[in-house]
Amino acid sequence: MTRTTILPLDLGERSYEIHIGSGLLDHLGTDLRPLARGRQVAVVTNDTVAPLYLERVTTSLAGAGFSVLSIELPDGEDHKDWTTLNRIFDALIAQRCERTTLLVALGGGVVGDMTGFAAAAFLRGVDFVQVPTTLLSQVDASVGGKTGINHPLGKNLIGAFHQPRRVIIDVTTLATLPRREILAGLAEVIKHGLLRDADLFQHIEEHLDALLALDPAMLVPVIRDCCAIKARVVSADERESGQRALLNLGHTFGHAIETLAGYGNWLHGEAVGMGMILAADLSRRLGLCADAVPQRVIRLIERSGLPTRAPRHPPQAYLDAMGRDKKVEGGQVRFVLLERIGQAVLRKGVDPALVAATVADHLAD
Amino acid sequence: MTRTTILPLDLGERSYEIHIGSGLLDHLGTDLRPLARGRQVAVVTNDTVAPLYLERVTTSLAGAGFSVLSIELPDGEDHKDWTTLNRIFDALIAQRCERTTLLVALGGGVVGDMTGFAAAAFLRGVDFVQVPTTLLSQVDASVGGKTGINHPLGKNLIGAFHQPRRVIIDVTTLATLPRREILAGLAEVIKHGLLRDADLFQHIEEHLDALLALDPAMLVPVIRDCCAIKARVVSADERESGQRALLNLGHTFGHAIETLAGYGNWLHGEAVGMGMILAADLSRRLGLCADAVPQRVIRLIERSGLPTRAPRHPPQAYLDAMGRDKKVEGGQVRFVLLERIGQAVLRKGVDPALVAATVADHLAD
Repeated sequence: MTRTTILPLDLGERSYEIHIGSGLLDHLGTDLRPLARGRQVAVVTNDTVAPLYLERVTTSLAGAGFSVLSIELPDGEDHKDWTTLNRIFDALIAQRCERTTLLVALGGGVVGDMTGFAAAAFLRGVDFVQVPTTLLSQVDASVGGKTGINHPLGKNLIGAFHQPRRVIIDVTTLATLPRREILAGLAEVIKHGLLRDADLFQHIEEHLDALLALDPAMLVPVIRDCCAIKARVVSADERESGQRALLNLGHTFGHAIETLAGYGNWLHGEAVGMGMILAADLSRRLGLCADAVPQRVIRLIERSGLPTRAPRHPPQAYLDAMGRDKKVEGGQVRFVLLERIGQAVLRKGVDPALVAATVADHLAD
Repeated sequence: MTRTTILPLDLGERSYEIHIGSGLLDHLGTDLRPLARGRQVAVVTNDTVAPLYLERVTTSLAGAGFSVLSIELPDGEDHKDWTTLNRIFDALIAQRCERTTLLVALGGGVVGDMTGFAAAAFLRGVDFVQVPTTLLSQVDASVGGKTGINHPLGKNLIGAFHQPRRVIIDVTTLATLPRREILAGLAEVIKHGLLRDADLFQHIEEHLDALLALDPAMLVPVIRDCCAIKARVVSADERESGQRALLNLGHTFGHAIETLAGYGNWLHGEAVGMGMILAADLSRRLGLCADAVPQRVIRLIERSGLPTRAPRHPPQAYLDAMGRDKKVEGGQVRFVLLERIGQAVLRKGVDPALVAATVADHLAD
């Protein structure tokens, strides 16, 4: 049994704690009792996670005296829309939930985003707690307060900033996560070290096997470090104008890969991993960083079992896809580049020919 | 030409001004130029207001250098739903609106509530400006930051607190408002005096004819006073636990009247006017206030041309309808009652027999 680590996030009156440990699902009820405003909890989850963990969660909550309502959504990004969101509202209203009802998001990023937005909008705002069950959401969705749904014309276009009252990360839930999703989450973990913390990056290099074996003693501090890094970056810039953009390291290339590969063929984390390779190599070509930087990035991504060659499309197709990205400002693509391991910077006005040459050198055969 | 009155609302970083005057629609563009973050404005209105005022508004905005998109919704509370809200999102996204796009709500309460919620949720929050064109929305929707839509199972169940960047009240828009809606708005005006400001109540008594003639010199300061009263009450209690409930004076009886009369047969303001009569008379019967209080309330409501007899239903039907109201707490109806003109108080545990007797004495023949 690993000791639970608590990371406090200081956001004034919206401050909350991230609890990270193993077996936390089983004492969720007693953990939430002191911070719930009432005795009613609505657990929102999906039809993949429900058979695995819903009963443990509801048993724990009921054992602590909560009246528990559970709401099961269809799994997948395809369902991150208003129709599915309305199922949450319908259930909350049909069950006469009130301003004091606490929502609990049990699942990955889609469940977290939708539950958070439902909490933001139901009765103009109720409390919610995140219980992320994927590595990606444990690292990425625990900090930042972004919630929302997709629109047919774009992702995450409708939503709210709404901070959870607590985030509870039980790393043992990763045992049931498909291997490919573990690796995709690992890419985001690597990203946090690469953009802001050279020690974390080196720690991942040195303990990759233990991480991939999901050893809680290794996972807990690494997830904690990632959340702390994201919190530092976000707190410097809560509304995404400057600093926060650094979190998009690997995403400009990554989105182009996702677009060109066809939706769903590359997991987001896989594309980000490949995107970090391209960003690192572009940084080297620009003279921003030493040769060792892209070498270490490629080596770690490769050892992780993540893809290291980009989908075979003409480099111009990559440039076009990047030009349509929402991160474009005034027609110029804004790249997150590397000065060294642990030090990312923003650059606009990069020569497209250099970008194309970088892509060309990393295409799959 | 009346001088424009400016009422500043101090809400920290969300502070804004309410501008009240005549002819303000014609210089909307220059008024908004300094506070807009970009050059794109989306005017949201409905198919009743558009033929009357949309062209004046878009001309003024375009003249000030804005790129103007207009979005026309079907008129009416029936359309205050997700389907209609989505028309706003669809248009904003199709026209590539951005975080710097300013939304302008041109219309009554439904347009204001929906535009405000769209602004709260689009890209997780953009700025909006209220341009209310009904007396009810000028008095009621200018302060408080409540936005939202209805759910099939209840009104305003989904929404956000989102403050406008400015409220611009052009009282000349009331000239095209149906008489019955003017009177319904007047009931809310009277309510503000009755609950918090004896001088305003007396002023309305003394200048009722000029108000009903829509004299701007009379309307502007009265609307200003109402907004200031609501702001004082709301600022004491931004999340509706105590003070804010005083604004529901007349609403507990009023909602019962709306329910019993059948949706749409009584305008909300008409029901609130009748509700104030009942609340005043109940207060007298409880010994809370002097006989003169209900007498003055009945007299002013009557002189205004508002209904002074409640729909003919058994008093028990009123008690049942009030018991289902969302303002019920722990099974007890919470009444807003009067100690005197200008002094409202909250009371629970009122004897139902006394409530029934009050209703019985005010039923239509």
